[in-house]
Amino acid sequence: MITSFHPPQRTLMGPGPSDVNPRILEAMSRPTIGHLDPLFVQMMDEMKSLLQYAFQTKNELTIPVSAPGSAGMETCFVNLVEAGDTVIICQNGVFGARMKENVERCGATAIMVEDDWGRACDPAKLEAALKANPAATTVAFVHAETSTGATTDVKAMCDLAHAHGCLTIVDAVTSLGGTELRVDAWGVDAIYSGTQKCLSCTPGLSPVSFSEASVERIKNRKTKVQSWFLDLNLVMGYWGKGAKRAYHHTAPVNALYALHESLVMLQDEGLENAWARHAKHHNALKAGLEALGLTFVVPEDERLPQLNAVTIPEGVDDAEVRGILLNDYNLEIGAGLGVMGGNVWRIGLMGYACRKDNVLKCVSALDEALNRVGAPVSQGKAVAAALASYNNS
Amino acid sequence: MITSFHPPQRTLMGPGPSDVNPRILEAMSRPTIGHLDPLFVQMMDEMKSLLQYAFQTKNELTIPVSAPGSAGMETCFVNLVEAGDTVIICQNGVFGARMKENVERCGATAIMVEDDWGRACDPAKLEAALKANPAATTVAFVHAETSTGATTDVKAMCDLAHAHGCLTIVDAVTSLGGTELRVDAWGVDAIYSGTQKCLSCTPGLSPVSFSEASVERIKNRKTKVQSWFLDLNLVMGYWGKGAKRAYHHTAPVNALYALHESLVMLQDEGLENAWARHAKHHNALKAGLEALGLTFVVPEDERLPQLNAVTIPEGVDDAEVRGILLNDYNLEIGAGLGVMGGNVWRIGLMGYACRKDNVLKCVSALDEALNRVGAPVSQGKAVAAALASYNNS
Repeated sequence: MITSFHPPQRTLMGPGPSDVNPRILEAMSRPTIGHLDPLFVQMMDEMKSLLQYAFQTKNELTIPVSAPGSAGMETCFVNLVEAGDTVIICQNGVFGARMKENVERCGATAIMVEDDWGRACDPAKLEAALKANPAATTVAFVHAETSTGATTDVKAMCDLAHAHGCLTIVDAVTSLGGTELRVDAWGVDAIYSGTQKCLSCTPGLSPVSFSEASVERIKNRKTKVQSWFLDLNLVMGYWGKGAKRAYHHTAPVNALYALHESLVMLQDEGLENAWARHAKHHNALKAGLEALGLTFVVPEDERLPQLNAVTIPEGVDDAEVRGILLNDYNLEIGAGLGVMGGNVWRIGLMGYACRKDNVLKCVSALDEALNRVGAPVSQGKAVAAALASYNNS
Repeated sequence: MITSFHPPQRTLMGPGPSDVNPRILEAMSRPTIGHLDPLFVQMMDEMKSLLQYAFQTKNELTIPVSAPGSAGMETCFVNLVEAGDTVIICQNGVFGARMKENVERCGATAIMVEDDWGRACDPAKLEAALKANPAATTVAFVHAETSTGATTDVKAMCDLAHAHGCLTIVDAVTSLGGTELRVDAWGVDAIYSGTQKCLSCTPGLSPVSFSEASVERIKNRKTKVQSWFLDLNLVMGYWGKGAKRAYHHTAPVNALYALHESLVMLQDEGLENAWARHAKHHNALKAGLEALGLTFVVPEDERLPQLNAVTIPEGVDDAEVRGILLNDYNLEIGAGLGVMGGNVWRIGLMGYACRKDNVLKCVSALDEALNRVGAPVSQGKAVAAALASYNNS
C-alpha cells in the first residue's frame, strides 16, 4: 500500500520553484468553492488588478493561464502567430530554443538571431534581422534567461520591433516581481511569467498580459487558434469584464487562491521594494561566492540579481556537491541547463527565498561542500564577505 | 488596497469542483520541493501506480497532465490525430462539441454521430459511421457526460472501433473514481479525466492514460505534435521510467501532492467500494428528488450516480432557486449547460461530496427553496423518502 507523501522542508535556491511563503501555502488550502461562484468571480477581478500592478500595465487582458509557464509561452505564440508568418527570435539561452519550437509548431518560420549564452540579446543584431526580414510580424525574446542569469534591455528591443511594425512577445518567467519590469512603459505586446519564481508562489500558473494591439490581432486572425484550451478568444469569455462569465474550463481554484495571496504580499511590500530586496541580497551572495573563488557566467551589467550562474571550479564534481547540499543541508541549488550542464551552478534568490538567512546558509554550505570535495577552503572568509556586504548596504 | 481572500465553506454539489476532503487540502499545503528532487521523483512513481489502479490499467504512460481536464482532452487529440485524419465523434452532450473543436483544430475531419442529449451513445450508430467512413483512424466519445448525466457502454463502443481498425479516445472526466471504469478490460486507447470530480481533489490536473497502440502511434507520427506543452514525446522524458528525468516543464508540485493524497484515499477505500458508495447515495438522492416531483433527464439504465440532471418544474426560476441554495445554505448545485441552460439542474454527488449528510441537506434545502418560489410543498416527504432509501439499502 502507498501512504501519504510528506516532503522534507527544503531551502529552494535553484532556478525555481523557489521557497514558498507559508502564508501562501495556507491560502492554497482554504476551502474550494465553485469556479463560477460570485465570490470567486470577485476574487478573479482582484487578481487582474494585482497582476496589472505586478506587470506595470493597464492591459485589460491580464490574467493567469491555468497551467505552468511553458503553457503561458505557448499561449502567446499560438494566439499571435499564424501559419505562414515570420517571427524573429533572439536567442541567448535555452528558452529561445523553446520559442523556436513554438513558432514552428504554429506552421510559421522562425528567424533565429543568436547571441552568446550568458550575454544579453544585442539590439543591433535584432535591427539587422528586422531589416533583412521585412515580412516579420513578431519579435520574441527572453527578458531574464533562467538558463544563464542574463537580462536583456526590453525597451530597446521593443522600440526596434515597433519601428519595423512588429509586435513583441517577452518571456518574463524569472523577472516578474524580482527585477524591474514595466510592460506599458517598455512597449511589450505579449508577456508571460510563472508563479514559482520571484512571486514565491507554488508552480502551476502562468500570468500573462496582452496589449490592445495584441488583442486586435487575436480578434482578427484568419484561422482559429490551434489550441482550444489556450484560445484567448474563448478564455476572455471567462476572465472578461462583467457579471456574466462564460464557462470555458474549470479554473484551478486553490492554485488561484495561492497566486492571489502572493500578489497581495507583493502589493503590500511594494514592487520597487521587492526589486531592491533582490538587488541587496544578490550583492551579498555575490560577495560570498566570489570569496569562494567562483566566477559569474554573466558580465556584471547584464546580470540578474535573482538567478546567479557561476562556473563550477575545475575538477569539482557537479552532482557530488549538489548532493552534499541537498542531503546534509536540505538546500537545493540548480544544475546547468543545455550546453551548461555539468559546468555551471544556478543559484536562485527568488521571492521568499531571497533572504539574509538563505544567503548566509548557501555561502557557508557551499564553502563546506567545496572543502569536502577537495577544493580550496575559504576559512570563513566567504560568509564574512557576505556579511560585510550587508553591513555596507 | 486588496486584502487576502477568504472563501466561505460551501457544500459543492454541482458538476464539479466537488467538495475537497480537508485531508487533501492539508496535503496540498505541505512544503514545496523541487520538481527534480529525488524524493519528488519517488512520489511521481507512486502517483503512476495509484493512477493505474484508479484507471484499472497496466498502461505505462499513465500520468497527470499539468493542467485541467480540457487540457487532458487536448493532450489526447493533438497527440493521436494528425492533419488530414478522419475522426468519428459520438456526441450526446456538450463535451462532444468540444471534441469536434479539438479535431478540427488539428486539421483533421470530424464525422459527427449525434445522439439525443440525455441518452447514452448508441453503438449501432457508431457501427454505421465506421462502415461509412473506412478512412477513420480514431473514435472518440464521452463515458460520463457531465452536461446530462448519461453514461455510455465503453466496451461496446471500443470493440466496434477496434473491429474497424480505429483507436479510441474516451472522456472520463466525471466517471473516474465514481462509477465502474476499466481501461484495459474495455479496450480504451486514450483516456482523460479531471481531479475535481469523483477524486474529490482540487481542480487543475488531468489524469490521462495511453495504451501501447496509442504510444506506438504517437512515436510514429509524420508531423510534430502541434502543442509543445502537451507533446507526450517530450512529457514522457519527464514522467518516464528510470532515475534520469529530463526537464520539460515545471510540474505543479503542490497540486500533485493533493492528487497523490486523493489517490491514496481512493486506494484505501477500494475502487469497488467507492463505486458502491456513489450508487448508494445516488439512490437516496433520487428518492428524495422524485418525492419533490422532480424528474430525471436520463432514463434509469443510462444514468450516472454522480451527476443527477433533473428538469426544473414549469414556472420555477432557475437562478432564483440556485440563489436561495447558495446564499441561505452555502449549497452549490449546477445550472444546465448549452441547450439545457435554464431547464435543468445538475446535482453532483462526487467523491467527498457523496455523503449522507449532503444528500439530506440537498433534499431539504431544495424542498424549502421550491416552497419559497411557489412550487408544491413536499411536507417533509422528500427527506423521509431519502432516509427510507438508506434504511432499505
